[in-house]
Amino acid sequence: MFQFTPIGVIHSCFREKFGIPRQAGLAPAARATLELLPPCDPPTTVRGLEGFSHLWLLFVFHGVPLGRWHPTVRPPRLGGRQRLGVFATRSPFRPNPIGLSVVKLERVAITHGRVVLHLAGVDLLDGTPILDIKPYLPYADSIPTATGGFAPDAPDPTLAVAFSPAAATFCARQPNDELHELITQILRQDPRPAYERASSTAQHYGMRVYDYDVHWEIRQGVAYVTEIRPSPEAVAVGQSGPTRPI
Amino acid sequence: MFQFTPIGVIHSCFREKFGIPRQAGLAPAARATLELLPPCDPPTTVRGLEGFSHLWLLFVFHGVPLGRWHPTVRPPRLGGRQRLGVFATRSPFRPNPIGLSVVKLERVAITHGRVVLHLAGVDLLDGTPILDIKPYLPYADSIPTATGGFAPDAPDPTLAVAFSPAAATFCARQPNDELHELITQILRQDPRPAYERASSTAQHYGMRVYDYDVHWEIRQGVAYVTEIRPSPEAVAVGQSGPTRPI
Repeated sequence: MFQFTPIGVIHSCFREKFGIPRQAGLAPAARATLELLPPCDPPTTVRGLEGFSHLWLLFVFHGVPLGRWHPTVRPPRLGGRQRLGVFATRSPFRPNPIGLSVVKLERVAITHGRVVLHLAGVDLLDGTPILDIKPYLPYADSIPTATGGFAPDAPDPTLAVAFSPAAATFCARQPNDELHELITQILRQDPRPAYERASSTAQHYGMRVYDYDVHWEIRQGVAYVTEIRPSPEAVAVGQSGPTRPI
Repeated sequence: MFQFTPIGVIHSCFREKFGIPRQAGLAPAARATLELLPPCDPPTTVRGLEGFSHLWLLFVFHGVPLGRWHPTVRPPRLGGRQRLGVFATRSPFRPNPIGLSVVKLERVAITHGRVVLHLAGVDLLDGTPILDIKPYLPYADSIPTATGGFAPDAPDPTLAVAFSPAAATFCARQPNDELHELITQILRQDPRPAYERASSTAQHYGMRVYDYDVHWEIRQGVAYVTEIRPSPEAVAVGQSGPTRPI
């Protein structure tokens, strides 16, 4: 038995599980900051890190109860129809729920002795505890010739995305000029559960991105963003948004 | 605080730390088996794994005392002369001593319900506890364009390697027909500590590979294998070989 204490915590655009891309790098506009925690927060711990374009993050899957795993899982990539061994997948429901993501390091900020790493291309829920940061070493970690079993290539973006005039206008007025792009990147990956993709009934969804509630639906095979509103939950500190189709 | 229990254990050609390559993949002939442990050992946990050429292993650095870390470390890659932040290196002396290696999956063996993965290109000490196995997904994990800070490329093999007639004959007579190649791959990476590489005094070393004691020395800049013997320690079960220049 080994005990580990988080060295840092993630502050992410993803405030709930629904909508998080299934691997890092699939939504380049998905941003997060990593805040180092004591006793791992002396600025010297990241000396030289700025020379690396990418980092590995080892993290504990957030919001996944410990001990909740099964020898086989049904990867969404296979449409949820086929069972594979848990160790042949990247499912969060694992004997040791440790996740592994490679993220882009945009900037190392050290302000008043506080270390914050600015990251892009994340697939991490807000609040995720970080166990380790390692530099990405292309000579050791990049194996372009590796063969990838049931997931040899990136999933094709399957959904076209459109915004209502009101939603587009809302985005254009926000200080975050990437909001439109981020929502597009999330929706074109089709975040719906596999069993709902085949459904022909009307589907309406809500998801929280940053402090916004994003409402969208499927209209003739297109993900159509109907409305974006500031989230009332953003005011209620400590209350985390549920994972929900509405 | 999070608690994790090993899901498996490594049986490796590396019976001591001295000689282990500094990253996975540098010695392709370095082999190991990974034995799954209960309750993670039902053969169904690896269903579909055989379709992947490479795996990530998350492991606990073996033989590294917990809690022994410093905000900065001196990577051997920089000749041990320069201090970098611990999170900018892959040093085993980390706040959470979790290692990450990508290894080649040669075969999944299931015999009498017991699961053993046959691996190559390892950099793992015999007895290393494994926390997780994940498939290597080239589309997400392989970033050939990543820039690698102080370690942009694989370290150049710096030593020529030669065998005495006795050592070469010994290798040729072993059932393991890769022994000569494995020792060559280990030595050409120059496993000496940085401070000894510059030394001009005679250097004699011993290292244990499988159940063999390999004796070598530096002769005019060449790693010269003088003698290989079956290790007497291999008989004394439970006694692990020390890390030592002799």
